[in-house]
Amino acid sequence: MTVNFALLGAGRIGKVHARAIAASVDARLVAVSDAFADAAQTVAEAYGCAVCSIDEVETDKSIDAVVVCTPTDTHADLIERFARAGKAVFCEKPIDLDLARVKHCLGVVEETGAVLMVGFNRRFDPHFAAVRAAIDEGRIGPVEMVQITSRDPGPPPIGYIESSGGILRDMTIHDFDMARFLLGEEPDTVFATASVLVDPAIGEAGDFDSVSVILTTASGRQCSISNSRRATYGYDQRIEVLGAEGAVAAENQRPVSIEIADARGFTRPPLHDFFMTRYTEAYAAEIAAFVAAIAGGKPAAPSGEDGLRALALADAALLSVRERRAVKLSEIL
Amino acid sequence: MTVNFALLGAGRIGKVHARAIAASVDARLVAVSDAFADAAQTVAEAYGCAVCSIDEVETDKSIDAVVVCTPTDTHADLIERFARAGKAVFCEKPIDLDLARVKHCLGVVEETGAVLMVGFNRRFDPHFAAVRAAIDEGRIGPVEMVQITSRDPGPPPIGYIESSGGILRDMTIHDFDMARFLLGEEPDTVFATASVLVDPAIGEAGDFDSVSVILTTASGRQCSISNSRRATYGYDQRIEVLGAEGAVAAENQRPVSIEIADARGFTRPPLHDFFMTRYTEAYAAEIAAFVAAIAGGKPAAPSGEDGLRALALADAALLSVRERRAVKLSEIL
Amino acid sequence: MTVNFALLGAGRIGKVHARAIAASVDARLVAVSDAFADAAQTVAEAYGCAVCSIDEVETDKSIDAVVVCTPTDTHADLIERFARAGKAVFCEKPIDLDLARVKHCLGVVEETGAVLMVGFNRRFDPHFAAVRAAIDEGRIGPVEMVQITSRDPGPPPIGYIESSGGILRDMTIHDFDMARFLLGEEPDTVFATASVLVDPAIGEAGDFDSVSVILTTASGRQCSISNSRRATYGYDQRIEVLGAEGAVAAENQRPVSIEIADARGFTRPPLHDFFMTRYTEAYAAEIAAFVAAIAGGKPAAPSGEDGLRALALADAALLSVRERRAVKLSEIL
Amino acid sequence: MTVNFALLGAGRIGKVHARAIAASVDARLVAVSDAFADAAQTVAEAYGCAVCSIDEVETDKSIDAVVVCTPTDTHADLIERFARAGKAVFCEKPIDLDLARVKHCLGVVEETGAVLMVGFNRRFDPHFAAVRAAIDEGRIGPVEMVQITSRDPGPPPIGYIESSGGILRDMTIHDFDMARFLLGEEPDTVFATASVLVDPAIGEAGDFDSVSVILTTASGRQCSISNSRRATYGYDQRIEVLGAEGAVAAENQRPVSIEIADARGFTRPPLHDFFMTRYTEAYAAEIAAFVAAIAGGKPAAPSGEDGLRALALADAALLSVRERRAVKLSEIL
Repeated sequence: MTVNFALLGAGRIGKVHARAIAASVDARLVAVSDAFADAAQTVAEAYGCAVCSIDEVETDKSIDAVVVCTPTDTHADLIERFARAGKAVFCEKPIDLDLARVKHCLGVVEETGAVLMVGFNRRFDPHFAAVRAAIDEGRIGPVEMVQITSRDPGPPPIGYIESSGGILRDMTIHDFDMARFLLGEEPDTVFATASVLVDPAIGEAGDFDSVSVILTTASGRQCSISNSRRATYGYDQRIEVLGAEGAVAAENQRPVSIEIADARGFTRPPLHDFFMTRYTEAYAAEIAAFVAAIAGGKPAAPSGEDGLRALALADAALLSVRERRAVKLSEIL
Repeated sequence: MTVNFALLGAGRIGKVHARAIAASVDARLVAVSDAFADAAQTVAEAYGCAVCSIDEVETDKSIDAVVVCTPTDTHADLIERFARAGKAVFCEKPIDLDLARVKHCLGVVEETGAVLMVGFNRRFDPHFAAVRAAIDEGRIGPVEMVQITSRDPGPPPIGYIESSGGILRDMTIHDFDMARFLLGEEPDTVFATASVLVDPAIGEAGDFDSVSVILTTASGRQCSISNSRRATYGYDQRIEVLGAEGAVAAENQRPVSIEIADARGFTRPPLHDFFMTRYTEAYAAEIAAFVAAIAGGKPAAPSGEDGLRALALADAALLSVRERRAVKLSEIL
Repeated sequence: MTVNFALLGAGRIGKVHARAIAASVDARLVAVSDAFADAAQTVAEAYGCAVCSIDEVETDKSIDAVVVCTPTDTHADLIERFARAGKAVFCEKPIDLDLARVKHCLGVVEETGAVLMVGFNRRFDPHFAAVRAAIDEGRIGPVEMVQITSRDPGPPPIGYIESSGGILRDMTIHDFDMARFLLGEEPDTVFATASVLVDPAIGEAGDFDSVSVILTTASGRQCSISNSRRATYGYDQRIEVLGAEGAVAAENQRPVSIEIADARGFTRPPLHDFFMTRYTEAYAAEIAAFVAAIAGGKPAAPSGEDGLRALALADAALLSVRERRAVKLSEIL
Repeated sequence: MTVNFALLGAGRIGKVHARAIAASVDARLVAVSDAFADAAQTVAEAYGCAVCSIDEVETDKSIDAVVVCTPTDTHADLIERFARAGKAVFCEKPIDLDLARVKHCLGVVEETGAVLMVGFNRRFDPHFAAVRAAIDEGRIGPVEMVQITSRDPGPPPIGYIESSGGILRDMTIHDFDMARFLLGEEPDTVFATASVLVDPAIGEAGDFDSVSVILTTASGRQCSISNSRRATYGYDQRIEVLGAEGAVAAENQRPVSIEIADARGFTRPPLHDFFMTRYTEAYAAEIAAFVAAIAGGKPAAPSGEDGLRALALADAALLSVRERRAVKLSEIL
């Protein structure tokens, strides 16, 4: 079975998905839609598909699935619309920045029975997936402590930050999802601290650039998250998990792994310069999982519920930063 | 100049210091004292020194310095006594488990003008010292985030735990000192969470075995600490520091660094089995620094004040665990 | 410009190239030919191209280039035929197992002015290419010593070995090309030793499975090569180069780079299981370089001459094994 | 039992042994002798021993063992003299640069029944010893191929080179001993190539600075050795062994193992600056093994025979360089 896709939104992340779909033997990109005609046209030419309006995609019976890469404030509307149109929906995170809106949207999806998958790409990274597999295989015993280090090479433009919902909802949300993916138990309490160390303009925009979080579960499992909007050495993405019988870790990835030795020491090149190259394999595996869910007529994971819970953790973290206390997830959700 | 030492307390850590003194070209171990005659005798034979009573050490004019490795509840008394006797004092951490007692003791030391050094050995580890040197040399720019992972191979006997003052004062206290050593600014707020995941008996003794801490400074610098009383792969001691211009990290150490490759993969041996072998070089450098301070007639570091501040952070952390909120150090000190 | 390709030979390595062509934005696979109709059909379906005979490919004006992945004893004939037909030719190594035949073939290519590229894929591995780039940038000063370790996970079937020309012409030939790629000066002398340690059947087939080689250049530069037909831990492919001012090395690659720590130590997974996964990126870059040469109307590298010289080194090595002495390349070429 | 030592020769390597003896609980340095009174005096003061003449050491009944660190051309005479005097003898390599002289010396030692140990310190490095232990435990199956990389940080003074016997007898001899230590079978054939790449003055002195060697055994096991007198990144000392079931490797050691990451990449400090710091643990273990042999009344290893065989391999290698052919050890020994 080949799944026919329409891509909604032909920006940076849209192009990443277009390439992943084109490279898949089980998927075909048949249509692309974007408010900017030029952006849509570029993708259409690169992968030999049609430029369509949203309305045309909605009514085209040959289209099985849509990939939503439009601006965040359109996500929930588009999910609802295409779920109702009987199409499988893959939506970039977040579903919405407002929890109530997310809940409503998920209610609509449930009514329609549509397949919905949320784009937490890191679950599909082969290294992080192998960490999870090692846990599932019992290699380290019951999980006790998770440590996630997640740092961007440099801060985004202030304009992006202003519409991002803040670092906790924009960046840490990926780590909240990874924490849930790895802890083996729902985190029920959040403590977070956040400050502005990288760029005062980020603070002036009402956001932070440096974040530390501790999540805890009912049984006492702990997860630490460390975020920064700046790492001069590249896109820093590491995970380690301590269990009762051992530990497992996924180290950073770099595009070229040579080492040069001279009188100053031994030097390896910087890490990947950002998520497009760091997670190339993850994006391909993510689309493959979505296609497999559609083909199998099964719920996709990460689900809408996963999107909801990660957002709720972000909201709890923001409350914790403001009130300087541990916040129960039950205060939020 | 050769400094003549008496060792007070010939237990496990006492023997470590005895060896470090014996190996130093500028120090000589001339006396050892222990409530258990056999323990003192063993050290005396190994290093060719005399067995003495505490009183004899106090009045022996030839003894320049004492190393206090007796049980914790005797530390403050011995520090005061030997400071008054005009001897330089090296005391294993902690000075005392009670902040008020520590303050009084430091007052006495100040009056006498004695040299006092507190045994935070990790500052002298060549790898951690190199991390600090890299910061001081401006290699990573201003410090922003510190991450300390510190895990014991296995939990101590319950009897030890009962008299230890709890994991925060016994184990995390080393990490609090390292945080102060590396942050470049005093931490002023502590958030800590602690749970019992390793052994319920530890919980029954009123203590915890798994701890996550976030320290913050006035300018927003952050330090995360992760502790466990169990790491099956050995004594896990890592530090990493993110700065505005780069990062520096000290990896784990192992006694033998071979790698065996076969069909199951590439395997390196476990880490050191505990602090005596992991910090061999640190203990030697620590005594050398103490001897240098005595010879130079200068204050030693880490100082009594360093001991006081690390303990205060531990007390603040304990309050944070209980009240599930960020605690200001000013509430404690 | 899009280059239209025909694939000649749809076996294991043929499929690797078919995928690389399909993934390229500048290349299109339009035809596939194979003596086994089923093999051709499989590729045709996977990538949407036609099944053709060799004759049809030869006369099809729309086909710009052929990729020769047929059995070794057909390579030279096909190169000559398609060079005369005005098509660019990419040929898997070796051009032929007989030096005289190779020379004749290269003469024909020269007459026709056709683009010919020989499939020494390792030059295009991003890590090995970065080693060469570091040398070219002067990072290590003039090259002095090269060390190449190249081991297969396990021996091929005896049938393969019997028609392979022997380990020196089949396996070490890649290392001879890498040596030439990295030494910065033509090796002019070869010493080789070879033995049968892996499987006596390989010896009975007249071949070896374990090889050590030293190449030297006129100025005294040295290159060591270590080959085995068996490495239980995976496909072992390493290079290191010592220069007057430093050294550069490319380490092994593995598909998943996690590390599991427990009481037995720290374990990383085995390496790639063979060349198809290890050199995925190299095969893509190789086709891209071929397409660029065609588009630019320029000679391709590695050239036919590179194929000739690597084979001559293999022949010299075989003579060295037999006569237990250093053999001058001028005795062969 | 405490073994009383006299040190003959208080130069660079003599001081290394003096420190190892002083640090041992079972050994005591009681005398030091050197043609230069100042050198002897320095050691005497540092470790509290007497300055003696060679004659005094010979007749002093309280001295159990001598450590010979005098110039090479005195080694054989001193070994014979002290063996006859009933003392255990530890001699730095080589016994002599002339094979016939070595054989005669070993004959004398055999007659006297004296304990003789030759200073191939690398066998006692904990990492290399662990490589051997892994082989002995069957972790990698039967040994097939050994690779030894051994490079000095920089060339010695020309004066040293002139009296060294040449790089093969001075430097590669350590690698010949390691090859024998690890191959599990005597190497019976040597091929070597050598050139002058580092400093023309070394060539003018009749020596080489860059060497590649292949050793083979009767059953076809192979060992590659790569030497250079210059490695800008420090003292490069690596070993790897391929067996039928796996491989084992010992990586380089560095005094400080931090890593600094910035926009240029990830940098670790250079390696040890030379053998005194790289092999500190090995020198201590070497003396401990010698003491244990004396205490147990047993032959010591590496033995005089080991010294003889390593020298014979060096002589065979030199002949191979000259005649550009594989040389049988039986041509030499």
